[in-house]
Amino acid sequence: MRIDIISCVPALLDSPLNHSIVKRGQQKGLVEIVVHNLRDYTPYAHQQTDDYAYGGGAGMVMMIEPIARCIRQLQAERTYDAVVYTSPDGKVFDQATANSWSLLQNIIILCGHYKGVDERVRQMFITHEISIGDYVLTGGELAAAIITDAIVRLLPGVLGDETSALTDSFQDGLLAPPVYTRPELYEGMQVPEVLMSGNHSKIDAWRHEQALTRTAERRPDMYQRLIVAD
Amino acid sequence: MRIDIISCVPALLDSPLNHSIVKRGQQKGLVEIVVHNLRDYTPYAHQQTDDYAYGGGAGMVMMIEPIARCIRQLQAERTYDAVVYTSPDGKVFDQATANSWSLLQNIIILCGHYKGVDERVRQMFITHEISIGDYVLTGGELAAAIITDAIVRLLPGVLGDETSALTDSFQDGLLAPPVYTRPELYEGMQVPEVLMSGNHSKIDAWRHEQALTRTAERRPDMYQRLIVAD
Repeated sequence: MRIDIISCVPALLDSPLNHSIVKRGQQKGLVEIVVHNLRDYTPYAHQQTDDYAYGGGAGMVMMIEPIARCIRQLQAERTYDAVVYTSPDGKVFDQATANSWSLLQNIIILCGHYKGVDERVRQMFITHEISIGDYVLTGGELAAAIITDAIVRLLPGVLGDETSALTDSFQDGLLAPPVYTRPELYEGMQVPEVLMSGNHSKIDAWRHEQALTRTAERRPDMYQRLIVAD
Repeated sequence: MRIDIISCVPALLDSPLNHSIVKRGQQKGLVEIVVHNLRDYTPYAHQQTDDYAYGGGAGMVMMIEPIARCIRQLQAERTYDAVVYTSPDGKVFDQATANSWSLLQNIIILCGHYKGVDERVRQMFITHEISIGDYVLTGGELAAAIITDAIVRLLPGVLGDETSALTDSFQDGLLAPPVYTRPELYEGMQVPEVLMSGNHSKIDAWRHEQALTRTAERRPDMYQRLIVAD
């Protein structure tokens, strides 16, 4: 899999893309991640990539020309399954999207910044507009890092233990149950007895029960979807 | 404002906290951000901070002792308004939470990693369990970076133009309207005439109309809340 990320502040992506699981995925050759500095593609003086909004108002707008040049150059080199734009008004990213995108070959992620991109970029180039949540960030770089992380950890061979991702929250429509580790007793607080029992069918039943309770209490919206699906 | 971030992979936070708006907030003295390496607080050999889950299963669990030491040391130095834990099963972060947290004095953010923290950490220390969205990440470091970014950009004086944050998506319960910048004509695609008119009341009306339409089309859930509130 190859992920191309286009940004006007590429340095923001340095540490998220070069540590932990995302680093491991690259080292193992399971994913290639290439960050493009939008300033390298602008035809304008002073490496300009943004300008004032037509109609006035606060905040700068990312210009179409540098973005068009970068995306067209990439598309001339290979076929892309998705050209994603990160923006608070996009479709909200979730685990189902991460799962399905982990099966793609080549993805471009264009990071929104400032007030966002010229609307014509969205009309001409973007196949998926994605928001990682209902809040506003300085830029889409962290959103791109999050989408990348969520996808890369699902690629077979990236996580040490293949079964680990399958027991995460959301993969079965439930939040994960509570977890405990050593010590068994901490300042009067004991690990639940069942987890120390060695009885694996009991442990599984307890965890499923806890996951259900936690989902019902914390995320009635998720719980409702689960009940309806049953 | 002071934000303390506790992490077992602190290097992940390097670039997100040292660029763009978050950097500017720190340089202007409007926010102090301190990252703590959990390994500096562990009493165990080999800087161990995680261990296997009681009851078995894939994935490691963050131990309580190093976290307890770190949080207690911080709490001995000052009073914290919130001790946040980033976890996919937390309350979903949104702009309203960002707004209200931007008014706090001192916050601790504990980054979940691996399968998460020992449940007793949540019971003993955590005041707010927060998820940035319905997807699983390698760790809570990116979540902490996002919460920090969303808060810091709201602190008065951080953004260059004070009014910029107020016209973002979500601040009025609406998605933002489309934006355009130079050139006026790009490969046959023209900027909407009204934006070139210089008539500011017309422009405002067009933007509001576009924001309403976009919200209704893309986020019927948000639109519904808006209608009900009216």
